[in-house]
Amino acid sequence: MPAKPLRVALAGFGTVGGGLVRVLQENQELIRQRIGRDIEVRKVLVRDVHKPRAVALPEGAVLTSNPDELADDPDIDVLVELMGGIDAPHALITRALERGKHVVTANKALLAENGIGLFQMAAEKGLSLRYEASVAGAIPIVETLKKSLAGNRIESLVGILNGTSNYILSAMSSEGLDFDTALKQAQELGYAEADPTLDIDGHDAAHKLVLLIRLAYGQEYPYTAMPIRGIRGMNRMDIEFAREFGYRIKLIAQAHVEDGRLAARVCPTLVHHTYLLARVGGSFNAVRVEGNAVGSLFLHGRGAGDLPTASAVMGDLLAVARGERPDNTGFVAQTPERAAILPPEEVRSRYYVRVMVHDTPGVLRDIAAAMADEGISMAQVIQKTGEREGVPLVFMTHEASARAMRNALSRAVKAGLLTTPAVAYPVL
Amino acid sequence: MPAKPLRVALAGFGTVGGGLVRVLQENQELIRQRIGRDIEVRKVLVRDVHKPRAVALPEGAVLTSNPDELADDPDIDVLVELMGGIDAPHALITRALERGKHVVTANKALLAENGIGLFQMAAEKGLSLRYEASVAGAIPIVETLKKSLAGNRIESLVGILNGTSNYILSAMSSEGLDFDTALKQAQELGYAEADPTLDIDGHDAAHKLVLLIRLAYGQEYPYTAMPIRGIRGMNRMDIEFAREFGYRIKLIAQAHVEDGRLAARVCPTLVHHTYLLARVGGSFNAVRVEGNAVGSLFLHGRGAGDLPTASAVMGDLLAVARGERPDNTGFVAQTPERAAILPPEEVRSRYYVRVMVHDTPGVLRDIAAAMADEGISMAQVIQKTGEREGVPLVFMTHEASARAMRNALSRAVKAGLLTTPAVAYPVL
Repeated sequence: MPAKPLRVALAGFGTVGGGLVRVLQENQELIRQRIGRDIEVRKVLVRDVHKPRAVALPEGAVLTSNPDELADDPDIDVLVELMGGIDAPHALITRALERGKHVVTANKALLAENGIGLFQMAAEKGLSLRYEASVAGAIPIVETLKKSLAGNRIESLVGILNGTSNYILSAMSSEGLDFDTALKQAQELGYAEADPTLDIDGHDAAHKLVLLIRLAYGQEYPYTAMPIRGIRGMNRMDIEFAREFGYRIKLIAQAHVEDGRLAARVCPTLVHHTYLLARVGGSFNAVRVEGNAVGSLFLHGRGAGDLPTASAVMGDLLAVARGERPDNTGFVAQTPERAAILPPEEVRSRYYVRVMVHDTPGVLRDIAAAMADEGISMAQVIQKTGEREGVPLVFMTHEASARAMRNALSRAVKAGLLTTPAVAYPVL
Repeated sequence: MPAKPLRVALAGFGTVGGGLVRVLQENQELIRQRIGRDIEVRKVLVRDVHKPRAVALPEGAVLTSNPDELADDPDIDVLVELMGGIDAPHALITRALERGKHVVTANKALLAENGIGLFQMAAEKGLSLRYEASVAGAIPIVETLKKSLAGNRIESLVGILNGTSNYILSAMSSEGLDFDTALKQAQELGYAEADPTLDIDGHDAAHKLVLLIRLAYGQEYPYTAMPIRGIRGMNRMDIEFAREFGYRIKLIAQAHVEDGRLAARVCPTLVHHTYLLARVGGSFNAVRVEGNAVGSLFLHGRGAGDLPTASAVMGDLLAVARGERPDNTGFVAQTPERAAILPPEEVRSRYYVRVMVHDTPGVLRDIAAAMADEGISMAQVIQKTGEREGVPLVFMTHEASARAMRNALSRAVKAGLLTTPAVAYPVL
């Protein structure tokens, strides 16, 4: 006798929700071979039940606009939350957990900003709260950190976690577009939202980084403490100069441990062209993990989109259907401790710096002096010939703290050396 | 009260066994945080108990040269098999399963050639038989196929699965070494065995491909039916010509489904330089999986070595320690059906071909005619100037079956066009 189907309530029937319904249908026979039971969508929550849908409602499923009908239905085993936002899904997931339902979600903002209580509640109830789809789309980085690398001390995490930003930077780099044109192209192709703030200002990547840090270190790096800088207003000139030095500029989310404290940030960063991370094009995502046993592990895949995200949701649903023991955080403690944080100002790296200067003798000497006064030494310099707004003076430094770099640039400003604000990006 | 430790018997105390003991020691505190219990090595099986060891025996562990002392000890929960070979580990694993012990192994040869009975026995006993370390070293491809991608119909698998071969090809490509010199270098650096047959003749990659096919398709592609060609005797000339066309030569293990039948092979293959697979250097491994939801997923990491392999074994050990439900094949059926196989002769691909010909007028025409007679059309041609053994004539073809290529080359031989045997490699 076949096992009973797993009964799903789906909250959100947009791109990803529609993709999930399609994959469940297309791969139905395969799912039976994998887990010996069916997965059936019984209820679908939408804002407007009368709106026409691109994907047909699964057979036997009911549309509703009332979230309580999902959480309170005793014939539902698992809630799949694909609504987006924070408050509404938080209320729905809380209620579903209270009513004994497992939860699968793709909601990185919710989990990063407000997830701890949910993990605690799931643990108390012995329920699964799974979220593979919330970080790096189709890339199985949540499972990899939670399970496959669990025997490793993680030394560093480096990710390209925002497909929109990577699409824009790739288009600027390969097609020579400026930022605004590349953003517009991304919006036209559906790679960027009408309001792209979360993506291009780095918040989305930071949400994901908070989740990866929890999985890798079992610690909470509060989202509000994370230094975040996005790609808005990126100048094509810097992409070209970086290339002259052999680098690509990527929006990099990274974390590592230094003397027992966590250093983390989201920032446009130079990546040497020989690194696999430099080869991540278009809207793809990638994560590089370094551990004390695994060495360097690199995962690359689609970071968004209906079917890739559905693939990650499916992995979670099948785990629930198999009856896998909940292990939501990957640690015994279901409430991570607050991380000891290395103040962002103290984080050290090499830097790429571009300043626009007056084309007068001695200006390189004066800039170099401003750097030297903060203990920063220059490793390579390119000086270009004059333009209207001044001459770009571009250099790579040896390792320096963020504080030293800020101070050196502010010395240069005070000395009247710069015609426009400086640009400084760390080098991976 | 803390949970009881997981008690391990370790068979084999060489490179990987020593690495595992080191990682267990170094990461002991972390393991407690992850799973809430200790992992203790209680017995270690070696051939010679008197031989001096590079790594100290774990505290409380006993050395033995009698495998039955591992399998029959009621105080052992799990056997970790890192002996290598086939018959001895088969006997030991069988006996351990009979006695109710979980098994973790890195033994791809055993599982590929003789694994089905072991999976069946583990399933009957409700025991875990885990083998993440057996394919692609530290890369979590077993878990990824079994769990994360379980909701996908897998469209293709492409892997660089043998680090020794990849090291040799990389050294030939980047340092301009010939095959014998590169092999010797690999042996001196410990990347190749004194007897490198399993690696450079493709058998090791084929063993791993058989395991990946089982995980992806739930089907058995018998090892004895797999077309296998290694890199032995690879000519540097072909690496250079391939580069002129924009390709790298890699030892590629691949499988895909065509009209419901499995096409699979291990063969030196041209990979376009823009592919991530072309960027896999030295002894690294990589796997690219394409699925109908995930799209393209690429995983890259260390394919061998003490600590990377130990990382994979640790992942499996921690899963056993957590009490994860055994799910050894990733399918309900624990005995995969024999795959419907597309005869290797019918598998189609583009080809790189190099023939050595007499430098006489009309030879290109005659070669092209031999190809055309088998329905093969040439896409690009390079003709070089004369050398002693004849002139290399190099071309890329449009898609052709392996049979058509063999027939066309044998036509060219019969027509007396070639001065030495032809070289033909498929293009990915």
